Amino acid sequence: MTAGLFITLEGGDGVGKSTQAALLEEWLVAQGRTVVRTREPGGTKFGVEVREIVLHHRGDIAPRAEALLYAADRAHHVATLVRPALERGDIVLQDRYIDSSVAYQGAGRVLDAQQIRDLSLWAAEGLLPDLTILLDLDEDAARARLDSARTRYDRLEAERSDFHARVREAYLRLAAAEPERFLVVDAARPVDDIAAEIRERLSGRV
Amino acid sequence: MTAGLFITLEGGDGVGKSTQAALLEEWLVAQGRTVVRTREPGGTKFGVEVREIVLHHRGDIAPRAEALLYAADRAHHVATLVRPALERGDIVLQDRYIDSSVAYQGAGRVLDAQQIRDLSLWAAEGLLPDLTILLDLDEDAARARLDSARTRYDRLEAERSDFHARVREAYLRLAAAEPERFLVVDAARPVDDIAAEIRERLSGRV
Repeated sequence: MTAGLFITLEGGDGVGKSTQAALLEEWLVAQGRTVVRTREPGGTKFGVEVREIVLHHRGDIAPRAEALLYAADRAHHVATLVRPALERGDIVLQDRYIDSSVAYQGAGRVLDAQQIRDLSLWAAEGLLPDLTILLDLDEDAARARLDSARTRYDRLEAERSDFHARVREAYLRLAAAEPERFLVVDAARPVDDIAAEIRERLSGRV
Repeated sequence: MTAGLFITLEGGDGVGKSTQAALLEEWLVAQGRTVVRTREPGGTKFGVEVREIVLHHRGDIAPRAEALLYAADRAHHVATLVRPALERGDIVLQDRYIDSSVAYQGAGRVLDAQQIRDLSLWAAEGLLPDLTILLDLDEDAARARLDSARTRYDRLEAERSDFHARVREAYLRLAAAEPERFLVVDAARPVDDIAAEIRERLSGRV
């Protein structure tokens, strides 16, 4: 048991995770809570080095190697940043965690989802979020948002469309399996409506 | 089953793995075999990037993160280089493999040895060597060789002496548990004597 609260944001690229994280942080700070905003991969200096390989290595990476790099980033991040913050009683607000690994490496790349989950849990010494906010958006809408935001895709964003469709389905399956942990939000709705729904879910716990 | 032969060299730094690998390669090539010389970490371009983090990251790396980085390097190396070479019928002669992970991360850093082994086997999709040559040398002799060879230790070499003693004991336990796979050689003996002992063990299989 930890004294703090561990909240993760999940969903494809372009669904608005950063926007919602910023709004939620603002509200939590106004409630007098200390918030640690972080992300995976790349939430530590070590993680930045790992993230550089994952996103920008020239050439293919074997699927298991990719899964293991994400797990390495996670192990260091949880041990040195997330767990100490929770033990201080802080709220950790994190962009992507175990569910990203299961959805992307498990469903997306046709590795065994349960093995990916076990690997992540070993890396994190069993730490699961108290709440996971899944921003759900259909593939066409997500791609349109990315297209309007920037001109260059990184390696994962450039994967073909059916990959992203499988990732979305994997996310929805994870949420259905753990309704207590997940809040699934329709990311096509107005930003302020989504923020209000998230605050409502948290109102009893902050 | 693979058509080739997978031979790994194990032991602490300074025991003469590179020297013995070179002599063995020379002999195998003289027998008409195709030899692929490689190593972990760093046997691929991807692995070089990972090795750079493992050996030269500034600051501590969480023990599980370190184990996962080695496993990532291994997954890519086995999938893209080792397994294809074995399927061609080549002999793969490799400096360090799964036993290094178990000895260094497992015994050395007080992680569970069986978990480290399971992690490595998952990364390598179950591939174990046909022969593992363990060059065994007591700590003082190994350190003296390193001292005379170079002036600057990398991060792992700089670990304190009892770490290296635990690694050596872990190696010897692994060899005792799998005598069919291991050849344990006293690395304090003359180079040519060691090379002859290795050739003798291989003479029926090449």
